Amino acid sequence: MADHWPEGSLTTDDFLGGRLRISQPRDGYRAGVDPVLLAASVPARPGDSVLDLGCGVGVAGLCLASRVEGLMLAGLELQCGYAALARQNALANGITMEVVTGDVSDMPEQFRRRQFTHVLVNPPYFDRNAGSAARDTGRETALGEVTPLATWIRAAARRAAPKGTVTFIHRTERLPALLGEISDHLGSLEVLPLIPRRGRPARLALVRGRKGGRADFKLHDGWVLHEGAAHVSDKENYTDATACVLREGGHLPFQL
Amino acid sequence: MADHWPEGSLTTDDFLGGRLRISQPRDGYRAGVDPVLLAASVPARPGDSVLDLGCGVGVAGLCLASRVEGLMLAGLELQCGYAALARQNALANGITMEVVTGDVSDMPEQFRRRQFTHVLVNPPYFDRNAGSAARDTGRETALGEVTPLATWIRAAARRAAPKGTVTFIHRTERLPALLGEISDHLGSLEVLPLIPRRGRPARLALVRGRKGGRADFKLHDGWVLHEGAAHVSDKENYTDATACVLREGGHLPFQL
Repeated sequence: MADHWPEGSLTTDDFLGGRLRISQPRDGYRAGVDPVLLAASVPARPGDSVLDLGCGVGVAGLCLASRVEGLMLAGLELQCGYAALARQNALANGITMEVVTGDVSDMPEQFRRRQFTHVLVNPPYFDRNAGSAARDTGRETALGEVTPLATWIRAAARRAAPKGTVTFIHRTERLPALLGEISDHLGSLEVLPLIPRRGRPARLALVRGRKGGRADFKLHDGWVLHEGAAHVSDKENYTDATACVLREGGHLPFQL
Repeated sequence: MADHWPEGSLTTDDFLGGRLRISQPRDGYRAGVDPVLLAASVPARPGDSVLDLGCGVGVAGLCLASRVEGLMLAGLELQCGYAALARQNALANGITMEVVTGDVSDMPEQFRRRQFTHVLVNPPYFDRNAGSAARDTGRETALGEVTPLATWIRAAARRAAPKGTVTFIHRTERLPALLGEISDHLGSLEVLPLIPRRGRPARLALVRGRKGGRADFKLHDGWVLHEGAAHVSDKENYTDATACVLREGGHLPFQL
């Protein structure tokens, strides 16, 4: 790891109530609950193949692999330092994950002729042309839309097997663009809004499509993350259902 | 009315707890709660001008006018029999409403040079090319997409004044198409999903845009129409908040 990360530049954090231990940069892009929620929403079964597109340090894919046994798990990551951490995190958690360093806009040879039962995407959230750049380059690449959203969607759809699913987590602000683009490649679209608290607008949404799907678009009732009307103390106040997803590896009822 | 509606072909129904009495065809397209919810979501103020595009017998516009005093209310309706009923309903309820018979895809001269603070649209819900046609021609025209959704959106956006709002109610199945098209003409888009019961997918959604708006897209937490997990009796079981909207003319908290 010395190639990529100087001593003291990494932290090791618990995910899924300690079931997963994840090394990640102290100051770069840091995985939070988003990839955990993404993984919880994927209807994978033992033996399915899964591609985590833009996997970062591997949290989404590794969370899914610790909920569903016997997956064939792969990840693509642009930044070699993050890809190296994803490999290390898989190994440290006893999970087999094939991590390839490469660009989603120029799919590496290893993945070009392969298709997966499920593709997971937690793309950069912010348009780099619209906001101020993050100071950390790794964080900027991970958060900023260096690659256009349309490229992520096309690449994800191409890697999905017939009837396979592609699931995105993204900020709701991008939902119109995401739905417009995704409709050109996938069917049976569904949205699960992630509501910070009951009555508040969704900040994030899970968006899923199915390769060759023909069902009508479905907008699910929002999934509520936190209890109560406002965050009144430092005490964690996830709803019981969300805590079950984040701490015990429960799955989100985002049915196809 | 004899020109349009034979004796016995009409019913007179209460809306807003009897505040409005609406004559409508017994067998044609019948207004339900949808135009009432649409009207309840519009942030109109006294003195605002309002266009009900495809107004049918006038329910959406008349509901809005009975909640907000001093509106300048107009309606456009393709079918002259429905337009005649809208005029009669306005008169019978003591509301001034200018109803023009005409086609949304060929805007009548009366509206071509006018813009409105708020435009309301409850467009036909079903694609006539996709489903079986209704037996009643009036019902078919009102429910079936004879006019493409894009035409409704363009016409509505053109009739909205700068900073004016356009609000649609539509089936959630059409949301991706609606958002894609509406983004080309309006900004500050917001969606309020209408959830039949907590935990169920939204069947309908209110979609609002603002002429020249620049705010991010917003996805609100769903508005729940009915109490409980299933309809267990014939007893009406609207939530208290929904009953307030439907029976007492309350407004939906769909804030811009």
